[in-house]
Amino acid sequence: MSGFTPSLEQLIEQFARLPSVGKKSAQRLAFHVLNMSDADAQKFTDTILNARKSISRCKICCNLTDGEICGICSSQSRDKSTICVVEDPRDVIAIERTHEYNGLYHVLHGVISPMNDINPEDICIKELIYRLEDDTVKEVIMATNPTVEGEATSMYISRLIKPIGVNVSRLAYGVPVGADLEYADEFTLIRAIEGRNNL
Amino acid sequence: MSGFTPSLEQLIEQFARLPSVGKKSAQRLAFHVLNMSDADAQKFTDTILNARKSISRCKICCNLTDGEICGICSSQSRDKSTICVVEDPRDVIAIERTHEYNGLYHVLHGVISPMNDINPEDICIKELIYRLEDDTVKEVIMATNPTVEGEATSMYISRLIKPIGVNVSRLAYGVPVGADLEYADEFTLIRAIEGRNNL
Repeated sequence: MSGFTPSLEQLIEQFARLPSVGKKSAQRLAFHVLNMSDADAQKFTDTILNARKSISRCKICCNLTDGEICGICSSQSRDKSTICVVEDPRDVIAIERTHEYNGLYHVLHGVISPMNDINPEDICIKELIYRLEDDTVKEVIMATNPTVEGEATSMYISRLIKPIGVNVSRLAYGVPVGADLEYADEFTLIRAIEGRNNL
Repeated sequence: MSGFTPSLEQLIEQFARLPSVGKKSAQRLAFHVLNMSDADAQKFTDTILNARKSISRCKICCNLTDGEICGICSSQSRDKSTICVVEDPRDVIAIERTHEYNGLYHVLHGVISPMNDINPEDICIKELIYRLEDDTVKEVIMATNPTVEGEATSMYISRLIKPIGVNVSRLAYGVPVGADLEYADEFTLIRAIEGRNNL
């Protein structure tokens, strides 16, 4: 024998398949799971299976939710005239944390990326266009990541939306608050200069 | 709504309880698990529960095994006169990887640590003493970690074994192969000088 016992090898291998979990971490996780109480282990696996069963995409904004319609879409206090378009459910949380935005969201679940064979029909673009059909929405704020794919997706969507007559805007680029200009990369600085405001 | 949907929060929380998994990693793992295929997710949870069910401690050496007796203890080709005592099943793998040692092992599953309320009866010491009762074993090699607790455990066990008339040895201390003397800590250097060999 030169390795662990087969069941343990399989357990380690399962953990090693998770993102950013290397071989050593997978071993540590496997040993941790073996040392859990029976109740904790059962709860861990049940939570995984339950979450997969009960979580689905909101019928309106495609964000992840336990029901049919997510909390934000069903809220009476949100401004229904603005939709902020993000790549990922985590981005919704990030923006919500600011307590500054009170509109609705739309989660694309990815960006257009021909290199990775992700085409416009693979992400939730048609669901967004469908939401603009009545006249409730006045503005769509593109908040995809400031990457090449995020930019391209943003451009693609704005070209679809403009003919409908809805205003499309983009999150401002610039130097992050609290950062040191000396360490800002040149592209960020170029954008910050281009987008300068009068004082 | 300021966070994720409840099932997702629970899933993230379960991952965040794993060792060295922070909040961001837990989120990434949770999203990964949600995006798995049904078959993969089922396999992941099944593997966890199966491993917990089928893995137990070898009746002889206390290493983890799928059966009653582990592969090393049941092997005919191993030298049954030597037992190498380690803290953890992972240490067995580390020593096996050298292909240099052909004796048996004994896994303590921990070290004596009064600070953490771990006493001699909490780790597999009596199972080791029991193995020395017939006269098969001639030497016990202590290979606990070179930490204060590892040292103390090693000393404690050697005092129990010596009266039985079995030879007890300790892994050599010294500078690690390939390391730079300049960066070796003083304690390692002191041990390396004390343990110097004639050329």
